[in-house]
Amino acid sequence: MSHSPIKNIALVGGTHGNELTGIFLVKKYEQNSHLIRRDSFEILTLLANPQAIAAGRRYIDTDLNRCFKPQDLQNPKLINHEQLLARQIAFTIEQSKIDLIIDLHSTTSNMGLTVILHNHHPYLLNLAAYLSKINPLVKVLQYPLNQDHPYLRNLCKLGFAIEVGAVAQGVLQADIFEQTEALIINILDYLEQSNRGEIVSVDNNLTIYRQIGNIDYPRNESGELQGMIHPQLQFQDYQPLAPGEPMFLTFDGQTITYEGESTVYPVFINESAYYEKKIAFYLTQKYQIII
Amino acid sequence: MSHSPIKNIALVGGTHGNELTGIFLVKKYEQNSHLIRRDSFEILTLLANPQAIAAGRRYIDTDLNRCFKPQDLQNPKLINHEQLLARQIAFTIEQSKIDLIIDLHSTTSNMGLTVILHNHHPYLLNLAAYLSKINPLVKVLQYPLNQDHPYLRNLCKLGFAIEVGAVAQGVLQADIFEQTEALIINILDYLEQSNRGEIVSVDNNLTIYRQIGNIDYPRNESGELQGMIHPQLQFQDYQPLAPGEPMFLTFDGQTITYEGESTVYPVFINESAYYEKKIAFYLTQKYQIII
Repeated sequence: MSHSPIKNIALVGGTHGNELTGIFLVKKYEQNSHLIRRDSFEILTLLANPQAIAAGRRYIDTDLNRCFKPQDLQNPKLINHEQLLARQIAFTIEQSKIDLIIDLHSTTSNMGLTVILHNHHPYLLNLAAYLSKINPLVKVLQYPLNQDHPYLRNLCKLGFAIEVGAVAQGVLQADIFEQTEALIINILDYLEQSNRGEIVSVDNNLTIYRQIGNIDYPRNESGELQGMIHPQLQFQDYQPLAPGEPMFLTFDGQTITYEGESTVYPVFINESAYYEKKIAFYLTQKYQIII
Repeated sequence: MSHSPIKNIALVGGTHGNELTGIFLVKKYEQNSHLIRRDSFEILTLLANPQAIAAGRRYIDTDLNRCFKPQDLQNPKLINHEQLLARQIAFTIEQSKIDLIIDLHSTTSNMGLTVILHNHHPYLLNLAAYLSKINPLVKVLQYPLNQDHPYLRNLCKLGFAIEVGAVAQGVLQADIFEQTEALIINILDYLEQSNRGEIVSVDNNLTIYRQIGNIDYPRNESGELQGMIHPQLQFQDYQPLAPGEPMFLTFDGQTITYEGESTVYPVFINESAYYEKKIAFYLTQKYQIII
C-alpha cells in the first residue's frame, strides 16, 4: 500500500516506571543510536516518566498512561505530577512533528508480544499483519474505536503500544528483552522499506482480538477482593474461554465460572496494575480480517 | 525431640506491602480463625505494614524487614515510617509473649516453598525436616549464623520466613496461594502434635542450602545496570551453577560466566526488590545434615 513517508518516530519507554524492558531498551538505544537509525526517518527516544523510573513505581501520583485525553490535556486544573508531565510530553511530540509513536510496555499477563491498536488505520493494520506473519508470538489487540482514549500513543494517529509478558514489574527477563528488541528492529525495518516504497510482502489475512469488555475480580460490598484468577485461566491469555469454564477461585475454594453467552478470548489476565482499576481481565473476540 | 510447648504464635503477612499471598492468607484467617485455631496454642495474626499494603508498595520509607536489628530498635534517632513501625511490632510481639513467628513472603524468584532459618535451633530443624519430607516443593535456606539479623522474624528465637514464588508483586497466583495455605496448615499441625508430646515421624536427614554470599548485576561506574540474568539461569533457583556456566547476559549480548572455584546453588535469582540492594542472586552451598 502507498502512504506518505513516516518522517519522525518516537520510541517511548518508561511510561510506567516499573516496566523495565522498555526502559532498558530505550537506554540501550540512547547509547547505541546506530541500532535504530535508518536513512528515511528520524527517531526520537523518550523515557516518559523519569521520576517514576527512579522510584521504581508505575507512577508517582496517577497513571501517566491515562492522562492523554485531549480535554484533560487542555484542563488547567489538572496539575499533579503525571498530568503536568503529560502536557509536556504532548508538547514534545507536537514540536518534534512525530508521525508515529511506539510505546513500550510490559505486563504480568502472558501476552507474548502484543501490538495494541486503537484504530483501523490501514498503515498500522499492514504493519501488524507483517509482524504477526514473521513472528507467531506477535498478537494484535484492538481497543474499541471512536473513543477518546487516554493513552500516550494517541498523541498521533499512527500510535501503538507493544505489551510484552509475562514479566514481573521491576524485573528484566532476558528472553523477553531480546524478543522485544527483535520486534522493534522488525518494525523499524518495515517502516524503512515502506518509506522507500518497497512493497513488503504481507498476508492480507490478519487475526485480531477486539476488546469488548472487562471482568472484575469477585469482591465483597466494601470492594475487598474475595478471590483470584482460577489456576486453569492463569497465563492463558488469547486462549478460548467458553461459557461454564472456570474464571475465578474464591479464597474459600469455590470456583466461579464464566457465564457469558459465547466463547471469548481473555487478555491482560491477572495484570498487577489492573487490580486497582477493577479489571481481572479483558474480554476479547477473535476475528480474521482481510486487509 | 522434647521442647517446652509453644504457647503463642504470630502469623505475619504484609511485612512487604506488595506481597499479596501472605496478605490475603492472613486476611482469610482473620475472617476464619477456626482454620488456624488449635488446642495447645494461641495464634496472633498480624498485617505488619498496613500503609504499605494500602499503597501496594514494598514499603513507604524503607524496607521494614531490615529495621529489626536490636541496636536499631533502641535508636531514638530512627523515626521514619518503618523504623517507628518496627518498634511498635517488637512491642506487640513482646507483650503477646510470642514464642514462634511465621513471616509470610513472596518473591519473583522461583523459590517454590522456601523455609528460611537463621539459627541451628533443633526445634526449627526438625520442623523443616518434617515439612521438606512431606512436600518436595519445600526447600530449606539458612542465612549465616551469629549475625545481628535485621528481620522481623528475629524478634524471637523460633522465628522463620516462608518465601514462595515465582510470583510477581501485586499479584495473587492461585496455585501458589493454595500451596502456601497447605504449608501453613502443615506447620500448625506439626506444632500442635509436638506440643502434645506426640513424636512426629521425621527423617533425621535434611538438605539445607547455606547462604555464603551474593552476586550483583554487571554495572557501569555510575552503578547503572549493564546486563540481566542469563536466560539459562533465570528461574533456576536451587539448581547447581558450575564454574564457567552462564550467569548474566549484558545488554549488548555478551555472556558473563560464573568464575567461582566450585559449584554453588543460586537462590533469589532476579528478585525484583533486590535490584536496589545490589543483589542479582544469593550464592548457597548444599548440605546434607543429620539432625
